[in-house]
Amino acid sequence: MPSELPALYPLGIVGAGQIARMTHQAAMKLGFTPRLFAERFDDSAAQAAPDAVFYHPDALAGFAEDCAVLTFEHERIDIGLLQAMEENGSLLRPGIETIRAAFDKMYQRRVLKNKGFNVPRFSEVRGPDDVLDFAASDGFPIVLKTVRAAKPGERGVWIVENRSEAMKVFSEQSDQQLMAEEFQAILKELVVLVVRRPGGQSRCYPITEISIQDGICTEIRTPADIGTRLASEAKDVATSIADELQAVGVLAVEFFLTTEGLVVNELAARPHNAGHFTLEACPTSQFENHVRAVLDLPLGPTWANAPAAVTLNVLGTLDGVDPARGLPEALAVEGAQVHLYGKLPRPRRKLGHVTAIGDDIGQARDLARRAEAALHGRRHI
Amino acid sequence: MPSELPALYPLGIVGAGQIARMTHQAAMKLGFTPRLFAERFDDSAAQAAPDAVFYHPDALAGFAEDCAVLTFEHERIDIGLLQAMEENGSLLRPGIETIRAAFDKMYQRRVLKNKGFNVPRFSEVRGPDDVLDFAASDGFPIVLKTVRAAKPGERGVWIVENRSEAMKVFSEQSDQQLMAEEFQAILKELVVLVVRRPGGQSRCYPITEISIQDGICTEIRTPADIGTRLASEAKDVATSIADELQAVGVLAVEFFLTTEGLVVNELAARPHNAGHFTLEACPTSQFENHVRAVLDLPLGPTWANAPAAVTLNVLGTLDGVDPARGLPEALAVEGAQVHLYGKLPRPRRKLGHVTAIGDDIGQARDLARRAEAALHGRRHI
Repeated sequence: MPSELPALYPLGIVGAGQIARMTHQAAMKLGFTPRLFAERFDDSAAQAAPDAVFYHPDALAGFAEDCAVLTFEHERIDIGLLQAMEENGSLLRPGIETIRAAFDKMYQRRVLKNKGFNVPRFSEVRGPDDVLDFAASDGFPIVLKTVRAAKPGERGVWIVENRSEAMKVFSEQSDQQLMAEEFQAILKELVVLVVRRPGGQSRCYPITEISIQDGICTEIRTPADIGTRLASEAKDVATSIADELQAVGVLAVEFFLTTEGLVVNELAARPHNAGHFTLEACPTSQFENHVRAVLDLPLGPTWANAPAAVTLNVLGTLDGVDPARGLPEALAVEGAQVHLYGKLPRPRRKLGHVTAIGDDIGQARDLARRAEAALHGRRHI
Repeated sequence: MPSELPALYPLGIVGAGQIARMTHQAAMKLGFTPRLFAERFDDSAAQAAPDAVFYHPDALAGFAEDCAVLTFEHERIDIGLLQAMEENGSLLRPGIETIRAAFDKMYQRRVLKNKGFNVPRFSEVRGPDDVLDFAASDGFPIVLKTVRAAKPGERGVWIVENRSEAMKVFSEQSDQQLMAEEFQAILKELVVLVVRRPGGQSRCYPITEISIQDGICTEIRTPADIGTRLASEAKDVATSIADELQAVGVLAVEFFLTTEGLVVNELAARPHNAGHFTLEACPTSQFENHVRAVLDLPLGPTWANAPAAVTLNVLGTLDGVDPARGLPEALAVEGAQVHLYGKLPRPRRKLGHVTAIGDDIGQARDLARRAEAALHGRRHI
């Protein structure tokens, strides 16, 4: 074990999942050894961190004192604690205003609405009767969701058709604060990744389009199949939100495309699952640009190196078989990029991803699907 | 600290410099957590290894027992010890025959000559008189070099013009075994990286051309400026050597191009400084393919993604200023890829590298030079 430790780590990452793992690698490329605030010693990123600190709320302030800059890979942290830390001089990037908007979905909706961005109709709800009131204007179905981050492995979103379904959600989620939103017919789900430095310099990555199945993002396609006018509008909105929130680092802005146009769905103030394609398809990955931004270093280029990229999440299956067993077959798919996170297999857990680039989405998807199927011992046809 | 450790690590890497650091990252991408055999806790790669083992020859066999496969980043290990380990059942990749040929330059020359490969005239020399004998046929200058790896930070090669210069080398290197080689007029220095699986599948990367200054490789250009016939010959020779030695993993074959044609200079049985461009310029980096090969997994594509790539080593300067201080300026060079290794600055020490891709060598070199100059606080003109 190290007999000496750095007096001050250049970067502390709160969280040690796959986002932290890839951010850690990007920091190491630039010569920085980040410190991690992990939950368990076998967390995906903790496997590469000699002196991770393990989770306890009381330990976070001490962790921050050892790090010049603190950044976050997940939203499961008390906002008040972070606010107190910032007031006490910790350098949080993003800062508390962005954190609050990303971590607290009610606050997020209020801020975005107040600033004139297009968001779904929403309301705080304390029980099924509030849901009925909310439904009075447009009727059911209604979307219920948790105001704070869902529990690990849960989605935290329910579409309810009537009062009794709403009551069921409330009784099962009695420990969580919920909010209601209008249900919208979604044509497409889009994600814009903006990366922004403290001084305001920002860049957008090519817009991605995601497919959701059972609440889990399964396929990410870049570029999104939308016109240049809509793409330009989405980038403008995302950049404006980042500016309004004074975001630092990657801000992922998720949009619904509806018949009415673009609606802001959610914000994530960190590198995002939809941006893994940037590792192979852009000169600077979202992870490296996040590190650059939070350390206030010049941003790297965010253009696409290839006409098309498709990323598939590798999810744990019900049978619990580790997709690592299919690695030899997956690596035999020429040109597919296989990433495994070193996580124990559990059903629906994100265990890795596969990216393929190609001349068009169809070609990239075919490669990615073959590799993903191989990991699961299936043959893609 | 980890309260449980894996029963068996999939991969052990002997050495913890920058080659190990980048190999470690490639292994992590594929879901493997390698164990490192480091020299110091602050070694470049040990910074990302929670349970590195620290160097002592007696510890190596125990380290090997904890790892399914062992691979090597440097040549400073006793060959007899490795042979005994292989005989006792450790799985060394590459195996002892390749190790001996890569670690012992006299053995390397003999093997290559016996198998019909074109090598410089050479001889074992035990003192200045042996050098005189060796020079009797072609005269001075004569190249003297260490049979085993040079000491860290040293080159281990001397060009001597007469007996007294030879005597000086012998007196200064009395603890090292030396050999003599004919001095050759070198038109170009080329490196072919072959990667080979245990079953014999092998692939070559595009051939690189290197510039050496004061014994240190400073610039690596890909593709090498040679005709297709010569490129094809170099790849054939490199592949034949890998096959003859039953190499596993990356085998770097360094060639001199002389007026007589290609001459094999040296072998390195590991990812090589001349192959760092593969991180950005090829679908599969040399590090990932080394991991794939030593774990007997299918090799990834080795073609070039870009018409040209230039890599510059970032060397420590005499003033001892850390090039990390120039990072903000270097990252402002759009499109240059900056890698720093987290090493303490010392004169002439490899502290990082910069790679740029481009439409031609001139364009790539210009980008790379601007970033490298910026790291050192200079302006490239």
